[in-house]
Amino acid sequence: MEANVVVEGGSSNSWLALVDSIVKIRSKVAEFPGKMKKVAEDDPRRIVHSFKVGLAITLVSLFYYFDHLYVGFGSSAMWAVLTVIVVIEFSVGATLGKGLNRGLATFLAGTLGFGAHHLANLPGRELQPILLGIFVFILAATVSFIRFFPRMKVRYDYGLLIFMLTFCLISVSGYRDEEVLEMAQKRVSTILIGGFTAIFVCIFICPVWAGEDLHNLAANNLEKLASFLEGFGDEYFRKSSEPESNKASLQAYKSILNSKQSEESLVNFARWEPPHGPFRFRHPWKQYLKIGSLTRQCAYRIEALNGCLNSDVQASPETCRNFREAFIKASSETGKAVKGLASAMRTMTLPTGDCPQTAKSKNAADNLKSLLRTGLCEGIDIVEILEVATVASLLLDILACTEKISESIHELASLAHFKRLEPDEKDGNPDLDKQKQVWQSSNSIASNHHHHIITIE
Amino acid sequence: MEANVVVEGGSSNSWLALVDSIVKIRSKVAEFPGKMKKVAEDDPRRIVHSFKVGLAITLVSLFYYFDHLYVGFGSSAMWAVLTVIVVIEFSVGATLGKGLNRGLATFLAGTLGFGAHHLANLPGRELQPILLGIFVFILAATVSFIRFFPRMKVRYDYGLLIFMLTFCLISVSGYRDEEVLEMAQKRVSTILIGGFTAIFVCIFICPVWAGEDLHNLAANNLEKLASFLEGFGDEYFRKSSEPESNKASLQAYKSILNSKQSEESLVNFARWEPPHGPFRFRHPWKQYLKIGSLTRQCAYRIEALNGCLNSDVQASPETCRNFREAFIKASSETGKAVKGLASAMRTMTLPTGDCPQTAKSKNAADNLKSLLRTGLCEGIDIVEILEVATVASLLLDILACTEKISESIHELASLAHFKRLEPDEKDGNPDLDKQKQVWQSSNSIASNHHHHIITIE
Repeated sequence: MEANVVVEGGSSNSWLALVDSIVKIRSKVAEFPGKMKKVAEDDPRRIVHSFKVGLAITLVSLFYYFDHLYVGFGSSAMWAVLTVIVVIEFSVGATLGKGLNRGLATFLAGTLGFGAHHLANLPGRELQPILLGIFVFILAATVSFIRFFPRMKVRYDYGLLIFMLTFCLISVSGYRDEEVLEMAQKRVSTILIGGFTAIFVCIFICPVWAGEDLHNLAANNLEKLASFLEGFGDEYFRKSSEPESNKASLQAYKSILNSKQSEESLVNFARWEPPHGPFRFRHPWKQYLKIGSLTRQCAYRIEALNGCLNSDVQASPETCRNFREAFIKASSETGKAVKGLASAMRTMTLPTGDCPQTAKSKNAADNLKSLLRTGLCEGIDIVEILEVATVASLLLDILACTEKISESIHELASLAHFKRLEPDEKDGNPDLDKQKQVWQSSNSIASNHHHHIITIE
Repeated sequence: MEANVVVEGGSSNSWLALVDSIVKIRSKVAEFPGKMKKVAEDDPRRIVHSFKVGLAITLVSLFYYFDHLYVGFGSSAMWAVLTVIVVIEFSVGATLGKGLNRGLATFLAGTLGFGAHHLANLPGRELQPILLGIFVFILAATVSFIRFFPRMKVRYDYGLLIFMLTFCLISVSGYRDEEVLEMAQKRVSTILIGGFTAIFVCIFICPVWAGEDLHNLAANNLEKLASFLEGFGDEYFRKSSEPESNKASLQAYKSILNSKQSEESLVNFARWEPPHGPFRFRHPWKQYLKIGSLTRQCAYRIEALNGCLNSDVQASPETCRNFREAFIKASSETGKAVKGLASAMRTMTLPTGDCPQTAKSKNAADNLKSLLRTGLCEGIDIVEILEVATVASLLLDILACTEKISESIHELASLAHFKRLEPDEKDGNPDLDKQKQVWQSSNSIASNHHHHIITIE
């Protein structure tokens, strides 16, 4: 066999390329189970979702198997299967949004298409195709244009597409099929059946609430900020001879930088959802956008601060002695304050009165400021001043940011009626600890929903 | 009439609410033409796209109107209309991606569904629905799970959905309709017709290339960075008594912060596109992601620098005198260097040898550094030192960033075979100026494509 491979220069090259690509494919196939395991471990709800999809489709295909169910709809029953596949999404909000969009758009377009069909019938058979063509052209162009409106795009894009689709199907195929009304009715009712099946399975079997995920995402992001701030001081003054500590956990904040898109889609989904768990009717979902935007602003500052970690110029031991304590104190106290905010978000309880952690972090900031006023410029090298001043100023900037975050969370708390707790009541409250466990969530919230934006027919 | 309104407390309230909501709706309707104009002005290609959609649908609906075209497909012709509506997208890449996904997935799933139908037929009529149900369940659950794989999600999500859909339709409706093969054939061929119509209209009538938009987006973002850097020095040392200058153009960089999503989808679309204009086969589209990520890193630093503009502590006139020139020089020279890079991107020509602007910006940075070494700490208030040192250090950080951007653009230039120009050749080259005009593009590139990610059924 080996002799075959090396017979000739050219053919051996193509042979080698073939062997190479086979090896590549084999290694990809070998990696597949590992990847599958990773995707499932990132968020076990994905497995449940897959089974839910299978179940919903199997349920709705019963229409085909049972004669007395089939009789009513005939081959239109196909639309029910199609609707289930297209409408069912990972979260309840996304499924409801798509289902309602599809249902309403089909109904409206069915009515309009029926009207257009009758209108085109009036002048006689010869003019009918021309009139129908004009109607279809005008409607398709108009709806395509409306789909560019930012507001329509966010909430009703799918509805507009289905509107266009149903109108064209009903008015155009009405030219051939004389029973347009029956066709329109069948399409609407099969889509209703498919939509309800999808929504039923989505809500009543291990539901995934976009609102809950959004809430957890906001808390997770705050915790990522906090863990950077808590670890920053130690990492900054770590001597290069010491082993790298927890640099990976320090870099967790990077995912916040690009979180806008997934946050927006989660808010959009959450607004379709009925009240669930601690989220009542008219929960202030839009406030999460404000918190998220402030969190991102803080993360941009942290990104700049992170640049100082990697810069070549590092402070000398002498400078360290002066500023070490103040820097570590300021950043870790701010980190603790942010962690407190994150846990207040998670448990949806806010301590009454001023938070002691916030006071401590303000204190640390004041200390740092006064140290800068007195300690800088006293026999320190100018390059170091530059470095120290930048870190100090960014830290103070981040502190100002966290204060804004705290304000916006207090705003959310009053809008969403968070529980109020006396400060001493908080420690050792078994209910709260339990609730906190329930709220613990995986890191893959954003990626699930983010991906599902792209979902299609 | 007014008497009616104030008759009773309760009823007057509900009347007022009604009047209020009518007023609101009227104002919204009145705003509509203005909004429409804005959407169209942001990117006139949107109007063309709307007409293209109308045209494609009208073309494909001819199947219904002409008898000899209709005979071949019957009511399956509906699938052609549906395919056009679903597949046609704003850019060529998005349309091609969707069309190829849909075509291939339908073909594969049609074959597999036909096989499943025959397999389920073997044990006899009684077991058939049970076997079919099991097949459908397993396939739907598996495909739903595979859709969570990040790589599959990005490029083949639509294909996977259509695969699931077609398999279910063919295998399930095969239970009722004995002519499964004919049905599968018809579905495949009508989808091919619809897909080709959509792709034809999209490519041959005023095509919108995602690759071109991606290229322009990268150049636009660099220009936004440049205009901030060019304006920063003046704005920073502007006395609060002077009028606000061009603060709006300074803030243009903010859109870069959240550009990752739209960049990624443009790259994904561009990879589906055939060679066009200056972009050859295998144009290094992935390099744009690298440039984009470096541009964003630079924008994060600028965001931190922008914080200094808004801070309350502003440098005193004395500090100004010392640092004014150095700051303005460093930031504007860097700005010019970035503008040079942006124009190199736009025209796809790179001057040979070292760029004089880059050398100038490095020079300015060195000047700033030496000024800091000598000029700081000499009778300046410590709060000002903090401020000045931060701005200086961020500026130097940004300069390092722009050097990385320059490297990545040179990499792109060698990968994509940019034209090389002798430095003196560049000035007054009429071809280049013309090309530059052609490349001038609107600001709404990102929003078009970004929105179109969500497009569905």
